[in-house]
Amino acid sequence: MNVGPYKFSEFKELAVKFHGYAAPGLLIGGYMTVAAKAALPDGVLFEALVETYNCLPDAVQLLTPCSTGNKRLHVVHYGKTALSLFDKYSGRGVRARVDPGLLGPRPEIRAWIMKEKGKEEQDEALLEQQIAEAGTTIIALQPVTVDLSRLNRKSDGPLAFCPRCGESFPAAHGGLCRGCAEGAPYSVPS
Amino acid sequence: MNVGPYKFSEFKELAVKFHGYAAPGLLIGGYMTVAAKAALPDGVLFEALVETYNCLPDAVQLLTPCSTGNKRLHVVHYGKTALSLFDKYSGRGVRARVDPGLLGPRPEIRAWIMKEKGKEEQDEALLEQQIAEAGTTIIALQPVTVDLSRLNRKSDGPLAFCPRCGESFPAAHGGLCRGCAEGAPYSVPS
Repeated sequence: MNVGPYKFSEFKELAVKFHGYAAPGLLIGGYMTVAAKAALPDGVLFEALVETYNCLPDAVQLLTPCSTGNKRLHVVHYGKTALSLFDKYSGRGVRARVDPGLLGPRPEIRAWIMKEKGKEEQDEALLEQQIAEAGTTIIALQPVTVDLSRLNRKSDGPLAFCPRCGESFPAAHGGLCRGCAEGAPYSVPS
Repeated sequence: MNVGPYKFSEFKELAVKFHGYAAPGLLIGGYMTVAAKAALPDGVLFEALVETYNCLPDAVQLLTPCSTGNKRLHVVHYGKTALSLFDKYSGRGVRARVDPGLLGPRPEIRAWIMKEKGKEEQDEALLEQQIAEAGTTIIALQPVTVDLSRLNRKSDGPLAFCPRCGESFPAAHGGLCRGCAEGAPYSVPS
């Protein structure tokens, strides 16, 4: 089954180029994205909320205008193979996830999604074939309303200089930049 | 000045396609990424740590193999125009930021980076011209070591079914999935 405007093989190529390899989660995430998008009203300006950092965010970035750097892609670290696309202004939209009840006779997808096999036991060619054949038919959709106040959308506002590091930062963050206040995850080697 | 392998005009086209428009932050972020990459040893497998969600993450995604969905791109919400590229295994790398002291006679970049003007007062053509002319010369680099233990890199591990929503989630997260435990930022309309 095509992945939106792309043939399966074309989407795989895009995946390799952007993500490093055509990971199963990216291929399934492609169908999830396509299914959710098709369920939105035509022409709606939408954003995305993805419930895992694994692969799915890249499917959204390849198939929609939502990206990490334009802040239309939001990720929460729930470890769930699920994503929502929603109207930027009303929050109303659609959540897509793989429903195990829809898998039917596709044991390789089931084993992958439920992590029943280690990577070395996986039959990757068969898994890919089952994903391509299943397409959007294994995706369950449900209407959702996203609470827009909980997303990172605010402008940073006016800047100040941090008295500790001397660099500029959003004044609204407080007296010090967050790197100095919290301790940044990097250090300057002495 | 070229942006890595791309002519400035080509990089602008990529930016429009991926990000929606050729934002100044994405163009400057392109030079920051290129400068940091050039300072890494040849052939090192690297990841990225970006200190703002504004634009810069997309520059990294366009110019390196690091993406949100392959978890080689990490973002902290510091609101700082800075990014680091670092060795995936040792954490050693390079931090790039725009140093106001290097701007010289480029008032439009200074006004943009310090947010001295509203968007409507900005001379976008002049800003873009100054960015293209300045290239990497306005980027300050410093060696850093990233604390790898503070990055999101762990596998999710074995799954469990959430007794509340019935969906699968990483068992290590606790008795309930995080969506149910914390209250997900979406709701199913009644």
